[in-house]
Amino acid sequence: MNETGRLIVISGPSGVGKSTVVNRAIEGRTDVCFSTSVTTRAPRPGEVDGREYFFIDRTRFHEMVERDELLEYAEYVSNGYGTPRAFVEQKLKEGMNVLLDIEVQGARQVRAAMPEAVMIFIAPPSLEVLEQRLRSRGTDTEEAVASRLERARQEFHEAEFYDYLIVNEDLDNAAHALDAIIEAAHWRFSDRAAWLKKL
Amino acid sequence: MNETGRLIVISGPSGVGKSTVVNRAIEGRTDVCFSTSVTTRAPRPGEVDGREYFFIDRTRFHEMVERDELLEYAEYVSNGYGTPRAFVEQKLKEGMNVLLDIEVQGARQVRAAMPEAVMIFIAPPSLEVLEQRLRSRGTDTEEAVASRLERARQEFHEAEFYDYLIVNEDLDNAAHALDAIIEAAHWRFSDRAAWLKKL
Repeated sequence: MNETGRLIVISGPSGVGKSTVVNRAIEGRTDVCFSTSVTTRAPRPGEVDGREYFFIDRTRFHEMVERDELLEYAEYVSNGYGTPRAFVEQKLKEGMNVLLDIEVQGARQVRAAMPEAVMIFIAPPSLEVLEQRLRSRGTDTEEAVASRLERARQEFHEAEFYDYLIVNEDLDNAAHALDAIIEAAHWRFSDRAAWLKKL
Repeated sequence: MNETGRLIVISGPSGVGKSTVVNRAIEGRTDVCFSTSVTTRAPRPGEVDGREYFFIDRTRFHEMVERDELLEYAEYVSNGYGTPRAFVEQKLKEGMNVLLDIEVQGARQVRAAMPEAVMIFIAPPSLEVLEQRLRSRGTDTEEAVASRLERARQEFHEAEFYDYLIVNEDLDNAAHALDAIIEAAHWRFSDRAAWLKKL
């Protein structure tokens, strides 16, 4: 069966543990790759251009927007983020499931552009737990923590268009849920109807 | 989290290996139970009333239809089959995922009555493989085999309203797929949106 991959969109507030859940879930899966986003923000210590992000300047970012080279894009805390369309489409054609870790506003653009994408929102057990996690990370000022919490509250209200909601209360459970959702997406009827017709 | 269960509908042609796939998939799951259907057909050797089916006569069957006591019902090879509504609703309330193994025409009734049900169609790798499996089962006459194959062809064409299509080419893969679909259903956004509002 020559199949295309599925686009898997994952969102959730900063500090919810997305990366940890995702990395645990895709351990050992050879059919999943990450999309690498472009961003105009400065690299953090340890980040490598082309690995965490493609770090680009605002001029190039706006050029990509104008040329429709981004599947989605968003501005967040005054920086631009976007997903290169060509990269995603090529990987899907190769049969890879492509993971997008993006904000709610970007996810909404993907929902409109690719309705067949699988959209997953990862939420904390409570806002108090999220606040604890943000503080213990120790990378943000008080103001940045407050801003991220307010942003999280807003995202919860805007998240109704997602297909799945995973509560990251227990890492194993959350990772198992994500793995199952990716596996289930592989068997969606709409993606296999053409195959059935051949019978 | 006080959650209701999900209704999981499984269909597929006679001989496709539904029972084997299902039993393998739910091994060790304590959150899944089968719905027990009523039927007017005679018990096969080894079948126990209340286990494989509730065996009822046609008078009682039609009474249940008239009183709307069946979530869905169908006539197949001149026998009546139906799903007792009260049983399913009680189990869902208790938080159990309820599995329904029913025909396509019954599944369509469930889709209309309970749009949130998860609908899975299990298909053979090919009609030739299905024919082999039916013959090797040795329980059907030539005419019955031909009738089941024709029925299968027809079902393939009517199956477009299912959510998932599992091709039972390899038992382990098919069972893993079903397990993932049941697990994924647990995390659907629509079932958890109320929880998110509390944040």
